Amino acid sequence: MTDRTAANAEVIARLCAADPVLVDVRPAGEVVPGMTRNTILTSGPPLPWGEYVGGQRAAIIGGALFEGLAIDQIDADRKMRDGHIRLAPCHDHGCVGSLAGIYTTSMPVLVVENRAAGNRGFCNLFEGPSPARLNYGVYNDEVRRSLVHLQDVIGPALGEVVRTAGGIPLRPIMRRALHMGDELHSRNAAATLLFGRELFPALLALATNRPESARQLLTYLGSDYVFLRVAMAASKVTADAGHGIDGSSVVTAMAFSCREFGIRISGLGETWFRAPMPRVEAKLFPGFTAEDVECMGGESIINETVGLGGFAQTAAFALQEYQGGSPDEMVAMNRAMYQITLAEHPEFKIPYLGFRGVPVGIEVHRVLDAGILPVMDIGVAGRKGGQIGAGVLRAPMECFRAAAAALERPSRSPAPHTAAERGT
Amino acid sequence: MTDRTAANAEVIARLCAADPVLVDVRPAGEVVPGMTRNTILTSGPPLPWGEYVGGQRAAIIGGALFEGLAIDQIDADRKMRDGHIRLAPCHDHGCVGSLAGIYTTSMPVLVVENRAAGNRGFCNLFEGPSPARLNYGVYNDEVRRSLVHLQDVIGPALGEVVRTAGGIPLRPIMRRALHMGDELHSRNAAATLLFGRELFPALLALATNRPESARQLLTYLGSDYVFLRVAMAASKVTADAGHGIDGSSVVTAMAFSCREFGIRISGLGETWFRAPMPRVEAKLFPGFTAEDVECMGGESIINETVGLGGFAQTAAFALQEYQGGSPDEMVAMNRAMYQITLAEHPEFKIPYLGFRGVPVGIEVHRVLDAGILPVMDIGVAGRKGGQIGAGVLRAPMECFRAAAAALERPSRSPAPHTAAERGT
Repeated sequence: MTDRTAANAEVIARLCAADPVLVDVRPAGEVVPGMTRNTILTSGPPLPWGEYVGGQRAAIIGGALFEGLAIDQIDADRKMRDGHIRLAPCHDHGCVGSLAGIYTTSMPVLVVENRAAGNRGFCNLFEGPSPARLNYGVYNDEVRRSLVHLQDVIGPALGEVVRTAGGIPLRPIMRRALHMGDELHSRNAAATLLFGRELFPALLALATNRPESARQLLTYLGSDYVFLRVAMAASKVTADAGHGIDGSSVVTAMAFSCREFGIRISGLGETWFRAPMPRVEAKLFPGFTAEDVECMGGESIINETVGLGGFAQTAAFALQEYQGGSPDEMVAMNRAMYQITLAEHPEFKIPYLGFRGVPVGIEVHRVLDAGILPVMDIGVAGRKGGQIGAGVLRAPMECFRAAAAALERPSRSPAPHTAAERGT
Repeated sequence: MTDRTAANAEVIARLCAADPVLVDVRPAGEVVPGMTRNTILTSGPPLPWGEYVGGQRAAIIGGALFEGLAIDQIDADRKMRDGHIRLAPCHDHGCVGSLAGIYTTSMPVLVVENRAAGNRGFCNLFEGPSPARLNYGVYNDEVRRSLVHLQDVIGPALGEVVRTAGGIPLRPIMRRALHMGDELHSRNAAATLLFGRELFPALLALATNRPESARQLLTYLGSDYVFLRVAMAASKVTADAGHGIDGSSVVTAMAFSCREFGIRISGLGETWFRAPMPRVEAKLFPGFTAEDVECMGGESIINETVGLGGFAQTAAFALQEYQGGSPDEMVAMNRAMYQITLAEHPEFKIPYLGFRGVPVGIEVHRVLDAGILPVMDIGVAGRKGGQIGAGVLRAPMECFRAAAAALERPSRSPAPHTAAERGT
């Protein structure tokens, strides 16, 4: 137990010390380790191709078509089955997927470096305010045009201003955004503005040479959700820095596919501890009902893994409007997260809680002992694709039971032992 | 009483309907009614020249020197006494003063138009982040240079981008800022960013012709307090729209000088109901004590007059860090303001209070009956000039007693009746 205490303390120290800096924006194929021309990354603990259904399946096929890896759905399905197209989990490539989370080689990705530990993480770009987006399971001409716009205009322009600025330190932006109504998952309005402010001097410089590029980038930065992807990459490098400490029982990843929710534990390697996908408590846009909700994957909950989003709800009371709930419920949910975590972040603080640090380091036994499940703020996708609302998701208890069982075994086994344990 | 009810309802309707739009930035002499070359405006119910002391007196003299109306302090004092320099209250010229609140003819002012009622209001520009500022009672070479910079660079550039943008509607910015941790008096960080976002397209256009102007304006917009002056002008046009309704007992101005606090009532014309300046509960910057606090005037509390600032504290829990207090105290203070007001704003809402509208329309008898005084979030000046902290101020009960007495009299009298009543 002393070993575990020390191991967990080391994980906490790394989670709290992370110093993510956005250093570049590049095509995935140039920077993401292991990314090849025929690789597609998708969200969640990996499944055999045949088990991907609905929006997530549609998004993977959309990615294949967008990248020119297949000529149509049938061709894509065949190439997926015979391995001509390689499907892999985002998390194993330093990436995190928003909803379905599709990465192909030509898509621009945010490159974030953790200056404290030296590791890197990536996230692709927010597709824009239209509810029809590839990450929400839609691929059509509008989506294709929007992806091409990211590839040809936004990615290169953003990369240029980020490089001109000499990199954008993200920790100060995230710290301030928590004082300005963001919890950095379902609300990123302040962080996006603060991020924009850091970019504007370089954007003005760009405007003198290529005014149209600058204008397009400025328009892009006007969407309140731009920063979510930046925060996801920041959270990924943070969580990864805490991963792989022998003996630690701290959660270092949470992710879901269209079928399963999974968690990874710092001391338990690449194994995903899985359970069937739980239900989301959603507030839907007008005209939609619970029948319309579809799960198509999601890894933006990497933010909750490091103490943001649902773990910082009382930083963002305005979320009620978007995802339902009441201030009292938000306070209760947020306070409960301190019971299942090991520490409070030294710099990310919540004004309403008297500047208490956000709860960091979800510990498996604390979850089991308290009977309290991690709370996540998520966007909700619809059966016909597109976003249809937002809500609160809770990780399934079964994942934590399976992880606790694995921690009991004398040493980490190289192969999965139970149905709930499967690696990547 | 029915007359009063109807009159107050009309005031509330006007306060809630106000639709302030920033239309221009111009030298005061060009746009402020009654502004002449030798006029200096200052904060608070007016006093004879000899009664202005400390920082407010220093700031008035600084204004005279800056404008070239006097060659030194002795000359300024003489010209003030013999009327060669005309001293007048900001409020009587459609202006509101920050702290000492000095306006001279060449200073650029924000021109705000209330599209609902057609009236105009003005506020001069934030002087920048240095604690030494004219509005904080300091006039030296540094302050002079900063005022010249506003006059020569920032004012003209800001005016140009505002005109290029076709005016900036302020109500949407203020509405959103209340969801992003601002109460729009002592916190304006989000509003400043949102304001900047509206200006950036025009700023990019400016950058192609005059990159240095654009760069300077961008730097200026990087200060979190820029929007306070914009909000003050917006609140002034709002309050003025509600002023002058016969029979109304709603407060339409609160202001203070170095000596006195005063309020005006919609149905009681230009009379100020005055009382000695109350003490502020302040959180001081390191190295200062209560001994160092000096009152040098202030009219930014026009924001409280229309339901912002202290009346919306629970929109801005991060204020604790700046002005002290605790979340619980802020909640109690904010809730209490609903007891002394007549309405809730239909669009300015507070997420923590379940999106309840901010309390609007301070009513004299409600204040007296509840024994609850209006709460104001203010910056605190020091005896040697400059800002030394921030805190909470409460309007004195005596002002409300005097106003209630005046409301009892059969008709508004043309001349002051009591020591607490003096016009301008």
